[in-house]
Amino acid sequence: MAATIRDVAQASGVHVSTVSRTFSAPHLVNPETRNRVLAVAEDLGYRPNRAARALTTGRTHNIGLIVADISNPFFPPLIKAAQAQARARDYHVFVADTDEDPQVEEELIQTLTKQVDGVLLCSPRLSNRAIERLHADVPFVVVNRRVKGMPTVLMDVGQGARLAIDHLTGLGHRRIALVSGPSGSWTSGEMRAAATAVEGVDLVIIGPNAPTEQGGLAVAAEVVASGATGVLAYNDLVAIGLIEGLYERGVRVPGDVSVVGVDDIVPGRLNRPKLTTVAMPAVAAGRMAVDLLLQSVCDGAAPTLATLETSLVVRESTGEVRK
Amino acid sequence: MAATIRDVAQASGVHVSTVSRTFSAPHLVNPETRNRVLAVAEDLGYRPNRAARALTTGRTHNIGLIVADISNPFFPPLIKAAQAQARARDYHVFVADTDEDPQVEEELIQTLTKQVDGVLLCSPRLSNRAIERLHADVPFVVVNRRVKGMPTVLMDVGQGARLAIDHLTGLGHRRIALVSGPSGSWTSGEMRAAATAVEGVDLVIIGPNAPTEQGGLAVAAEVVASGATGVLAYNDLVAIGLIEGLYERGVRVPGDVSVVGVDDIVPGRLNRPKLTTVAMPAVAAGRMAVDLLLQSVCDGAAPTLATLETSLVVRESTGEVRK
Repeated sequence: MAATIRDVAQASGVHVSTVSRTFSAPHLVNPETRNRVLAVAEDLGYRPNRAARALTTGRTHNIGLIVADISNPFFPPLIKAAQAQARARDYHVFVADTDEDPQVEEELIQTLTKQVDGVLLCSPRLSNRAIERLHADVPFVVVNRRVKGMPTVLMDVGQGARLAIDHLTGLGHRRIALVSGPSGSWTSGEMRAAATAVEGVDLVIIGPNAPTEQGGLAVAAEVVASGATGVLAYNDLVAIGLIEGLYERGVRVPGDVSVVGVDDIVPGRLNRPKLTTVAMPAVAAGRMAVDLLLQSVCDGAAPTLATLETSLVVRESTGEVRK
Repeated sequence: MAATIRDVAQASGVHVSTVSRTFSAPHLVNPETRNRVLAVAEDLGYRPNRAARALTTGRTHNIGLIVADISNPFFPPLIKAAQAQARARDYHVFVADTDEDPQVEEELIQTLTKQVDGVLLCSPRLSNRAIERLHADVPFVVVNRRVKGMPTVLMDVGQGARLAIDHLTGLGHRRIALVSGPSGSWTSGEMRAAATAVEGVDLVIIGPNAPTEQGGLAVAAEVVASGATGVLAYNDLVAIGLIEGLYERGVRVPGDVSVVGVDDIVPGRLNRPKLTTVAMPAVAAGRMAVDLLLQSVCDGAAPTLATLETSLVVRESTGEVRK
C-alpha cells in the first residue's frame, strides 16, 4: 500500500498540514522541517498530489462537470443547479464539453483530475470500462449511466417512455416510431427497452441518430416513409428538428403525426406547436450529483444510486390519430 | 518592480526551470539547490505562482472561459469554437457561468486565476474598473466589452442594429421599439447608441430588461402599449419570448408587429415565425479570443482590438407595416 500523508506526518513528527504545505507552498515551511519532511516522503515513496486532495487543506474546492454537448438546452439547468448547490458548500464548478466525442471526454477527465476534488460525468459517451479505469484517479458521480460501485444519479427515462407511449396509444396511435439517440447513450438504451416492452404497439425503431435538431431534420423522410402516426423522439431537440422536417414535407403536427420529445427544454415550450414531452428532472439531478460527490469526497460515504422520477407534460404536438 | 523568476535563477546560479520546479515539485530538486533557491526567492521578495505561469514549464495549458449565462444558446457555439481552437494548440477550456451576477463573476475569476494560463471574459457584467483590477493577476481577453489596454474581441452590434432599423424603415415602420438588455451590458449600450443615431425614426426605448425569454414575455404588454409596429429586441431569446407574449395578446407577428432579434441562435431558425435577426459572429469570436489570449500569454504580444462584422438575416418575423 502506498504511504499516506499521515504516514509522512507521523514519521516526520509534524502535523499533516505541514506536510501538505511542504508540497504546496514550500517557501512557507522552515527549511529544516521542509527538508526532514521531503526526506521522509522520499523514503516512504509518498506521492503528494493524489493524497493531498484527501486533506481539507489539500482540497481545491473545485468540481469538474463534463457534459456531452453544452449546446443542448437540457444541460444548462443541470449545470446551473449543480453550480448553485456547490456554491452553497463553498465549491466552484468548471464545465467542459466533450462534443459527444469519447476521446475528448477521456482527455478532459485526465486534465480535470489535477484541478478538482471530483468530477460529475453527465451522459458520458465513454464505455463503463473506461469510466471504471479513470475513476481510480479522481472521485466521480455519473449521471444517466449505470456504472457498478459508483455514485450514480439516474433520471428514469424508461418510466417516461412508457408514459409517452401510453399517451400515444390512448390517442389511438398504433404504429409508433422511436427515434433513438447515439449508440453510447444509456438513455437511448432505456427508452428502447421500455418501448419494446409495451404490448399492442407496432413499433418502428429509427436510429442510432445524432441527438440534435439536425438529427431530427435528417430522419423526417424516414419517419414519413415508416407510416408511423406517433413518434417518440430521443430528446426535444430531435423532436423540434423532426417537426420542422415534417412541415417542410407538408406533414402537419399534430394533424397528421403526433410527436413527443424528452427533456422539457425551454425552446420546446415556446415552439409552435408547443411540445408534448417527457420532463426530465435536470435541476434535481444537478443538485443530487453535487450532494453525492461531496458525500463521497468529504465523508467517504458509500456509493449511492439515486433514481429520479420523470413525468409527461402534454402540450400541443400530440393529438388523436387521424381516422 | 517585483522580482521575476529570471532574477531568482540568476541570483541562485541555476536555470529558470530549476526555480520553477523548486516551487512546483520541490521533492524533485536536490536539497542544497532547493534551499539556495528558496532563500534567494525570499530575499528578493519573489512571489512564485504569478511568474511561474509565464514560463513554459509553469503553464497549466488550461484556459478559463467565463460567460454571463450558459443557458443562452448564443454562448455554446462560441464556447465550442474556443474549445476547438484551444485543443488545436494543446489547451483545454474550462467554462464557468456567472448567472449574470457580477459578484459571482469576480469570485470565479479569482478561483480560475490559480488554475489557468488566461481567462476569456465573455459579455462580462463587471465594471471596467473591476476588470482592470483583476487583470493584474491573470491575462484576460474580453469579448463584447471595451476595456483599455486589454486584448478585445468585439462583435459590431451597432452596425447590426443600424441594418435592422434600416430594414424596418424600408418596410414602412416609423415607430420602432428598442427592447434593451441588462444595464451592465456593452452590447445594450451599443445598440442604444446606434438606434438613437438613426434619423426619421420615432424610437421608444424599453428596458433595461432581462436578456431571456422571460424578459421578452414580460415586456409584451409594454410593447403593445407603445404603439410601435417594429421592434428590435436585445437578443433572440427576448425576441422569441416577446413573440410568444404578443401571440398571447392576439397580436400577430409579422402581421401586426415586426420583430428583429440579435444573435442568430438555432431556436430562432426553427421558431414559427422564423426569426429575422442580426447574426453575431460567435464562432469567429470564440476562435479569435483564444488566438489573442495565446498570443498574449505565449508571445507577449501587445493587446489587439478585433472588431468582427455582423449581418442581417431576413426570415419570417418582419414584414411591411400594416396600412
